[in-house]
Amino acid sequence: MNNKKMNILIFSGEYDKALAALILANSAKEINIDVTIFFAFWGLLLIRNPNKMSEEDKSTYEKMFANMTPKSIEELPLSKMNFAGMGKKMLTEMMEENDTPTLTDFLNGVINKGITMQACKLSCEVMGFKKEELIDEVTIVTAEEYLKDAIDSDIQLFI
Amino acid sequence: MNNKKMNILIFSGEYDKALAALILANSAKEINIDVTIFFAFWGLLLIRNPNKMSEEDKSTYEKMFANMTPKSIEELPLSKMNFAGMGKKMLTEMMEENDTPTLTDFLNGVINKGITMQACKLSCEVMGFKKEELIDEVTIVTAEEYLKDAIDSDIQLFI
Amino acid sequence: MNNKKMNILIFSGEYDKALAALILANSAKEINIDVTIFFAFWGLLLIRNPNKMSEEDKSTYEKMFANMTPKSIEELPLSKMNFAGMGKKMLTEMMEENDTPTLTDFLNGVINKGITMQACKLSCEVMGFKKEELIDEVTIVTAEEYLKDAIDSDIQLFI
Repeated sequence: MNNKKMNILIFSGEYDKALAALILANSAKEINIDVTIFFAFWGLLLIRNPNKMSEEDKSTYEKMFANMTPKSIEELPLSKMNFAGMGKKMLTEMMEENDTPTLTDFLNGVINKGITMQACKLSCEVMGFKKEELIDEVTIVTAEEYLKDAIDSDIQLFI
Repeated sequence: MNNKKMNILIFSGEYDKALAALILANSAKEINIDVTIFFAFWGLLLIRNPNKMSEEDKSTYEKMFANMTPKSIEELPLSKMNFAGMGKKMLTEMMEENDTPTLTDFLNGVINKGITMQACKLSCEVMGFKKEELIDEVTIVTAEEYLKDAIDSDIQLFI
Repeated sequence: MNNKKMNILIFSGEYDKALAALILANSAKEINIDVTIFFAFWGLLLIRNPNKMSEEDKSTYEKMFANMTPKSIEELPLSKMNFAGMGKKMLTEMMEENDTPTLTDFLNGVINKGITMQACKLSCEVMGFKKEELIDEVTIVTAEEYLKDAIDSDIQLFI
């Protein structure tokens, strides 16, 4: 019998929503659910390779965009109560008090468990992110490819 | 064999989330997936008919609400990095540089492809939107009707 | 034949999104769809027991967090157009004009209909909420238990 499948579309580029998504992805894989994550729009901010930034072939807007947005997932803001970073500091301190892994740990979990990671082609084009600016494990695919994977999944979430 | 089905509930009234939803709807239809979109709450702001606004039968609050909210989908703000419109300007410029269709184009695609468009009855009542203030292709239905369509779909997303 | 099943993950702690989620839960139950709601992150703010707050066994951050966040669901802000409470006042006035039940009514509906209510274990730990600070009908479960319920459901929504 085939494994059950989960497909998560990560649209948001916020620390708390990213945490929720990546915790679910890791937990699912641990109980033998196959997982695909499709990163679109702000979700691309979760999979930037902090060591490979390129200003080549970027328009002025694309350069501005790349510079104005967080380079590392640990810099992502909260979706609410961010209070210019104070709320987020509070959340990460509370996570540390409870020995909860960081967002980076959960992302590494996703990578190490071999979870399928896809970036939305159109989002990459609009935001000006090149393949080499994303982490290596990510494949760039179209919305149609997302839909084909999602429609055969047992759970689909838009986060 | 019946086509596969997708149901999208659009709750958000933001430019970027609306883009994601309508791109998925168009792409799905292009690969023969039947699509229903249910517009609820802020999602109603995507289907206002800019030429038919009525102040008749509206309470004071309903009039204020209708006037304070965007009349056209191109006026919708971003869900983040809106920066009083500057972030959105940047996004739409980047879309133009890449010859990406506008939100209006994707909405027209949804209409022209005959995708089923439904507005939430309760949301219309609370916000004071009359049938004639919405674009013609929209039918007003209850939450139960949404659920009956969604439960028989292969993908359901809440955006 | 078994009933159809719906699983709603409530991540957001906002009045309008909570309304959408609880209206769908109530409507689904009324047409014999079995419903499970999993409250995670900010979603925990929907199920605080306003009469049982405890400062025992809480760290400084956890106390601050419990005090800075709304104690009652009626105090939750809107996800947009909140305008320091004015937008929300407007929405609740419009709801009243239409004899729409309040968020509290819909939550009571969920409780009275015996809808399964689960709180995310990790979220409770990080935010410092104890079992006794939540309303009685809630069970605390892991992400894996959420996934097992969700994967066997006919609809899954992330709100």
